[in-house]
Amino acid sequence: MTWTRKDLLTIRELERADIELILETAREIKQRPSHLKDTPLAGRTVVNLFVEPSTRTRTSFELAARRLGADVISIDSESSSFRKGETLKDTGLVLESMQADFVILRHSAAGAPRFLAERLKAHLLNAGDGAHEHPTQALLDTFTMRERFGPDRSWESLHVVICGDILFSRVARSNVWALRKLGARVTLVGPSTLVPDVFRELGVEVSHDFDSVLPDADVIMLLRIQHERQRRSFFPSVGEYVSLFGLDLKRFHACKPDVLIMHPGPINRGVEIASELADCPNSTVLDQVHNGLVVRMAVLKLLNAVEGAPYRHDPGSIDS
Amino acid sequence: MTWTRKDLLTIRELERADIELILETAREIKQRPSHLKDTPLAGRTVVNLFVEPSTRTRTSFELAARRLGADVISIDSESSSFRKGETLKDTGLVLESMQADFVILRHSAAGAPRFLAERLKAHLLNAGDGAHEHPTQALLDTFTMRERFGPDRSWESLHVVICGDILFSRVARSNVWALRKLGARVTLVGPSTLVPDVFRELGVEVSHDFDSVLPDADVIMLLRIQHERQRRSFFPSVGEYVSLFGLDLKRFHACKPDVLIMHPGPINRGVEIASELADCPNSTVLDQVHNGLVVRMAVLKLLNAVEGAPYRHDPGSIDS
Amino acid sequence: MTWTRKDLLTIRELERADIELILETAREIKQRPSHLKDTPLAGRTVVNLFVEPSTRTRTSFELAARRLGADVISIDSESSSFRKGETLKDTGLVLESMQADFVILRHSAAGAPRFLAERLKAHLLNAGDGAHEHPTQALLDTFTMRERFGPDRSWESLHVVICGDILFSRVARSNVWALRKLGARVTLVGPSTLVPDVFRELGVEVSHDFDSVLPDADVIMLLRIQHERQRRSFFPSVGEYVSLFGLDLKRFHACKPDVLIMHPGPINRGVEIASELADCPNSTVLDQVHNGLVVRMAVLKLLNAVEGAPYRHDPGSIDS
Repeated sequence: MTWTRKDLLTIRELERADIELILETAREIKQRPSHLKDTPLAGRTVVNLFVEPSTRTRTSFELAARRLGADVISIDSESSSFRKGETLKDTGLVLESMQADFVILRHSAAGAPRFLAERLKAHLLNAGDGAHEHPTQALLDTFTMRERFGPDRSWESLHVVICGDILFSRVARSNVWALRKLGARVTLVGPSTLVPDVFRELGVEVSHDFDSVLPDADVIMLLRIQHERQRRSFFPSVGEYVSLFGLDLKRFHACKPDVLIMHPGPINRGVEIASELADCPNSTVLDQVHNGLVVRMAVLKLLNAVEGAPYRHDPGSIDS
Repeated sequence: MTWTRKDLLTIRELERADIELILETAREIKQRPSHLKDTPLAGRTVVNLFVEPSTRTRTSFELAARRLGADVISIDSESSSFRKGETLKDTGLVLESMQADFVILRHSAAGAPRFLAERLKAHLLNAGDGAHEHPTQALLDTFTMRERFGPDRSWESLHVVICGDILFSRVARSNVWALRKLGARVTLVGPSTLVPDVFRELGVEVSHDFDSVLPDADVIMLLRIQHERQRRSFFPSVGEYVSLFGLDLKRFHACKPDVLIMHPGPINRGVEIASELADCPNSTVLDQVHNGLVVRMAVLKLLNAVEGAPYRHDPGSIDS
Repeated sequence: MTWTRKDLLTIRELERADIELILETAREIKQRPSHLKDTPLAGRTVVNLFVEPSTRTRTSFELAARRLGADVISIDSESSSFRKGETLKDTGLVLESMQADFVILRHSAAGAPRFLAERLKAHLLNAGDGAHEHPTQALLDTFTMRERFGPDRSWESLHVVICGDILFSRVARSNVWALRKLGARVTLVGPSTLVPDVFRELGVEVSHDFDSVLPDADVIMLLRIQHERQRRSFFPSVGEYVSLFGLDLKRFHACKPDVLIMHPGPINRGVEIASELADCPNSTVLDQVHNGLVVRMAVLKLLNAVEGAPYRHDPGSIDS
């Protein structure tokens, strides 16, 4: 199995073998003895273009790229004059003319990374586009599940429950695609306003009763309630949401003893999750952060090896 | 010919031979085989001090300096506590005490780079000062013209038309100095409020009739209409401006077939320039971005070689 | 004498020998021939977490860390999504999961660096916490005094006068601890609202009459009047403050000829200090900036050598 794609835009378009190749590459990176250097991106320029702000994901990509030897430039939307009246396409072409080999794009519009990928020779990585996809998040989540359950546990035997604001969540959408392609069973849980039945078309189950699905779950993935976007009220109050869909100690005791508690962060302690549970051994919250670094290194390394990639200039030189 | 100046402050003060030396150095950098490393700025610290924001020019300088091996620190005006009640001189001295070897300054006040250059041992590079000068822009523009027309075409045979908001444009001012020193013929075009006749004193022609100058132009350089600064209305409406001074297909067909269409970016598609023309083979918009990197590398390399430059500390060491 | 602390949180908790070790290490770094490289932090990740903004101190730490070979990520509070509803502890754990070996924290709350240090394996450096401490500032100040007065001058023979906004000043507090531990005599001067008598409990003298202490001072350290915090008026007017506590030429002539004039910057010329005095040979303002770089390198180097420090991954690799 060899990686052949120029870009990482969605999980939806990947084959199961693509996902497994990324997870295996990440595992090798994580296991490599620390005294062995590996800088396949030396001389490459990586641009972090975050039109929608995210210090956490941006920092993770920046560290991953630097660990592989790349030069990294981070451009935030707010301080950016790239965008004054300029189209996204023109911004992308300008970055490519500055010899960006990789553009890591976060954008509020679904599809923006694909739009740019079709117009640039640079490798495009989707770091989250609207409510569409966030592929590296699903990759680090599945990597974390595989790491915790071990290579002998089959994906087909896993039941993953994703609870919360599914409707607006690119994290949920990418995870659904990844888990279904790998063969896991997925149940989406939340109030019917945030988890409409139409999601069943994606091959998942839908439930509005968190308690009923707990005993059978191997993984409970909690999503952040995004106060910012909840101007139109999709549930009566945070208090009612917590009582119905917050993971508290009582609910935790109804789960399997080795259930994984996952959360993409940042956590609202006491809302989606009781504070004690965020820190308990079942929680993978910090593993996910660490694995995010590893998985992003794997993706950058695979894309970099694709034939016909852009500039391949050596450090300290320019070629066009 | 050897470079002897500590700073790059204006095109006005340069000799023709200085400009040609920069363009020739840039050409060598661009042609160098990419496997040959050249990091003459290793161990040097470059500070990007952008008191007026500009992601595009700042990123170009940052990449150029890093490609040459320098350490780069970027300080934006808005997030900066350097400036809380501190004079520009004190800010400059603080940066020099932190062992900045180069200070790249963008400032809203004309003359700010010279003021600082006279007080610091560090090399000063003007990245745009008010409506005064933007020397590296003129250098990348003339580099792009030379590259497109070839070394055998004489500057004296070129007619460059610069159209738009000349009055407020440091890009226009630096280009006028560069082109006149090299020997090209220059015509400034725009409404009389933005292109007063007094510009004739700079050795250029002035016209308010775009159509009449098109047939004879070898280069048409369009300037950005800066909405931000147009509070006092210098022309009745954007629509009227476009009809009189926008480069559309009809006007393009009145030009020589090999006319160069230049724009410093970011482009207002459909205002200064029709969208198709920005992307046509005559357009050099993306060449200009790429050449900006090359020309800035050339300038940094030449300044760095000047005797008596500041710190010359090796990587990982301090000397005072 | 060997350094054994994981963190640098306060001067208060240090022994005299700790302080002397840092100053001696800084002296060696400053004297090392510039062609000898020393990059003990190669492969380490340093995170600058400035929840309270400070370009000056952040830049100094960033340059110090890079000079030692580290990878540096700077996170500003304003653009940060790390903090949206996330606790400081969670932010710290996330940074550690991203393999930060060092976290340099500036925070508006006194004690925030200690809180985090107790919960992280990463080395914590306090870059200023509320009105509590700013240890590297006191270290660079005492380094500058020792450098100017020479190694043969005893600390016990030095009289240091600190004048200004003592009540809100972490700079004053850290300097009092450092100078008292080293054995110097310290007098705090300012209006009684800003310099209450209770400070005598720290082993220092308190005066409200600047003129009476000038003749005997070896060092006059002026603090910045922090307009931002002076909403409740602690003195009637800036004009009155200047007349009573500003260092002007008349007061300067009442001092010893070799008196040191120190200021942590940024300077309010004409307020705490007459403009001529900021630039005179007695002023150490720019030495302090340069020595800040040197002292921060020394601290990073000492902390890095402590047994049991976090990741010790090599460049280009991950280990967990």
